[in-house]
Amino acid sequence: MPYVNIKITREGGPDGRGPGPEDKTRLIAGVTDLLQRVLGKDPSTTFVIIEEVALEDWGIGGLPVPEYRKARS
Amino acid sequence: MPYVNIKITREGGPDGRGPGPEDKTRLIAGVTDLLQRVLGKDPSTTFVIIEEVALEDWGIGGLPVPEYRKARS
Amino acid sequence: MPYVNIKITREGGPDGRGPGPEDKTRLIAGVTDLLQRVLGKDPSTTFVIIEEVALEDWGIGGLPVPEYRKARS
Amino acid sequence: MPYVNIKITREGGPDGRGPGPEDKTRLIAGVTDLLQRVLGKDPSTTFVIIEEVALEDWGIGGLPVPEYRKARS
Amino acid sequence: MPYVNIKITREGGPDGRGPGPEDKTRLIAGVTDLLQRVLGKDPSTTFVIIEEVALEDWGIGGLPVPEYRKARS
Amino acid sequence: MPYVNIKITREGGPDGRGPGPEDKTRLIAGVTDLLQRVLGKDPSTTFVIIEEVALEDWGIGGLPVPEYRKARS
Repeated sequence: MPYVNIKITREGGPDGRGPGPEDKTRLIAGVTDLLQRVLGKDPSTTFVIIEEVALEDWGIGGLPVPEYRKARS
Repeated sequence: MPYVNIKITREGGPDGRGPGPEDKTRLIAGVTDLLQRVLGKDPSTTFVIIEEVALEDWGIGGLPVPEYRKARS
Repeated sequence: MPYVNIKITREGGPDGRGPGPEDKTRLIAGVTDLLQRVLGKDPSTTFVIIEEVALEDWGIGGLPVPEYRKARS
Repeated sequence: MPYVNIKITREGGPDGRGPGPEDKTRLIAGVTDLLQRVLGKDPSTTFVIIEEVALEDWGIGGLPVPEYRKARS
Repeated sequence: MPYVNIKITREGGPDGRGPGPEDKTRLIAGVTDLLQRVLGKDPSTTFVIIEEVALEDWGIGGLPVPEYRKARS
Repeated sequence: MPYVNIKITREGGPDGRGPGPEDKTRLIAGVTDLLQRVLGKDPSTTFVIIEEVALEDWGIGGLPVPEYRKARS
């Protein structure tokens, strides 16, 4: 009975606007498999929800991601 | 002082792209009423947030929803 | 394929430390039923997770709930 | 090691469709600074994620925000 | 810049009260590795938060997990 | 109409088991004030929820926080 919420920055992928369906499929399969292997959780009641977040809406180090990366480069 | 977050797959509704405003209004009214009836929670401090998730971003059974449904049909 | 997260303040119930199992059962049944009636969602893939939050950890009006209530009484 | 999730209604800002990048930058800086001042949390491991929610998807008082405001005005 | 929240029912593990530290360590390592392999995400900015939920607080099929399992057995 | 969820590691504070009520009060006041100053949000409909997470349940760099700190010290 696991619920997994994955938030990632919206970038990369086939058109630079986030991961494509194949990568999402791999994420969902990988997390579900991990929970089954480590904790014996049943895949049929494992939910995985992927949410993409615009770079300007994600902060780290007190800065939005684009500024954070500039400041460190 | 309840906070309710409802995540649903983005499908169905008037144009197949998720529930219309009337259904969302019914959801909000229904959840708020339930919390008042069962727990005596004050509607004026009950928040309900509805989030729609693309089918490809929702996994169950180790597969994105579209593949999951195909595999079971 | 809905996921519902209900956060409530930990208070009331049989011993004043939050709702008892019967009330939680009614909440889970009520929300699941609502999603089926309004949006046609299948109960077998509807998750409801209830989380109780200590009063001092919940803020409204810029104050923790206990201070907020004192200020308004 | 804090994680902060800020959900706000999508309104206001330069074009009425939510806060612009400058306001988001101020939010991220302000929350990160607060956590450092009050709890000594390291900004380099402080995540802040801002999510905007359509008015019709946010309920309070048993109504979507637009109806709630009409009813109170 | 991923953030992963894993909610699981509090059961199993060394004393029947949820997974022990070793299993949690494997979950954290596994999810972080998956995000690096599939999407190239940097582990140093990958957060994983595990939350355990009491069985009576988790609903599926309109029932708390203990009742749901009884009804299906 | 903001909702703010702050997750922090459970450590520090008066007894080493997390921040005391005074620090939580300062956090709630500070976040609410920030949202009012930057975005004009009404404190009376601003919710702030603080959640403390055990160190072993929080991962960064592919390790639970205690191992992560050891590895870097």
